[in-house]
Amino acid sequence: MKPQAYVFDAYGTLFDVYSVQAKCEEIFPGRGADLTRLWRARQLEYSWLRSLMGRYEDFWKLTGDGLRYACQFLGVKPGQEQIEELMQSYLALDAFPESGQVLAKLAAFPRAILSNGTPAMLEAVVRHNGLEGQFGHIISVDELKVYKPHPSVYQLAVERLGIAKENIAFVSSNGWDVAGAKAFGFTVYWLNRQGAPVEELGVLPDAIIKSPLDLLYLP
Amino acid sequence: MKPQAYVFDAYGTLFDVYSVQAKCEEIFPGRGADLTRLWRARQLEYSWLRSLMGRYEDFWKLTGDGLRYACQFLGVKPGQEQIEELMQSYLALDAFPESGQVLAKLAAFPRAILSNGTPAMLEAVVRHNGLEGQFGHIISVDELKVYKPHPSVYQLAVERLGIAKENIAFVSSNGWDVAGAKAFGFTVYWLNRQGAPVEELGVLPDAIIKSPLDLLYLP
Repeated sequence: MKPQAYVFDAYGTLFDVYSVQAKCEEIFPGRGADLTRLWRARQLEYSWLRSLMGRYEDFWKLTGDGLRYACQFLGVKPGQEQIEELMQSYLALDAFPESGQVLAKLAAFPRAILSNGTPAMLEAVVRHNGLEGQFGHIISVDELKVYKPHPSVYQLAVERLGIAKENIAFVSSNGWDVAGAKAFGFTVYWLNRQGAPVEELGVLPDAIIKSPLDLLYLP
Repeated sequence: MKPQAYVFDAYGTLFDVYSVQAKCEEIFPGRGADLTRLWRARQLEYSWLRSLMGRYEDFWKLTGDGLRYACQFLGVKPGQEQIEELMQSYLALDAFPESGQVLAKLAAFPRAILSNGTPAMLEAVVRHNGLEGQFGHIISVDELKVYKPHPSVYQLAVERLGIAKENIAFVSSNGWDVAGAKAFGFTVYWLNRQGAPVEELGVLPDAIIKSPLDLLYLP
């Protein structure tokens, strides 16, 4: 069955969060990879933990918190200006090379972003990559004050698009986001670029793809 | 102000989760450290994710799920018997050397465990270490079907002990658990054996200790 709309995760799916690695490496030679990995890990953990604690802060704040923790853990000491520079790089993540092409090819369908990012963060990264025209909706969890994979987040896309959840194709590179979206009831395509194992969360994606281009050729 | 009761986290605090590392290393030489670390990380992540998804499964299941994911990710292929052996090692974690001593010295106070573990897991590990007599209450999240750091979990200890939350000293080695407990309102002592940075979750513990023995000398 062909989906009636496509909803994309942003970070890691359309936009490469590891494109901050170059900036990290420039500022802290030899530590770029570790800093990038730990920064991203804490950013996500904090989103889950704060959701459970009922202490929401927006994703811009969590991105800064994750960066500060990662720097302290690794014993690197950025100045205020370097912190600023690293944070700004999050607003200028590169889109993966195929993102624009696939979005254009799917132009006959409603397309949306559904992301943990704040509206300002999402707007910035979409604009940076010249993708403003590609999305009917850019949906942020920020209006709900809870993060993925809480089911109410996925429900936001249903309400905004006005399409039944099983007719919405949700595309994410994050295995845990895939599990949350599938448990909610979307048709889910896991963009598994690295060939990682399926997360053991009790649900399976409808398809696993290696490249966003594969979306064009799914049955 | 002296606490009126002590509530301990189990895994990582009283009992050393890395004591499974020897078994991992025995079965998969050279991979023990990586397997132990990833297994523990996924066990915890799944607890947060499933809580957010509203899809609780108990901690024994999550421990197995985390192990399976970690093995697949690392490309090691345990047989059913080896899986069984690794899982059993979780029921026979070693207590940290000071755990028994400190519990005995605090015998004038009500002492409890508050843990993600199932009642059966907790009973097994307490018995394995001969600590049966040390706890008035062994409290599992399992009755609530949600994991730490959800505030309702910490509230369980208040109800069981019948003591106001600020008069309960909560002791955990897990920085995220410390944040959850402090946000809830306990007096919180972070057992920070490795000198890790404070998690950037917006709350600070009341004290940071290097050894459980320090509990005896807090002001």
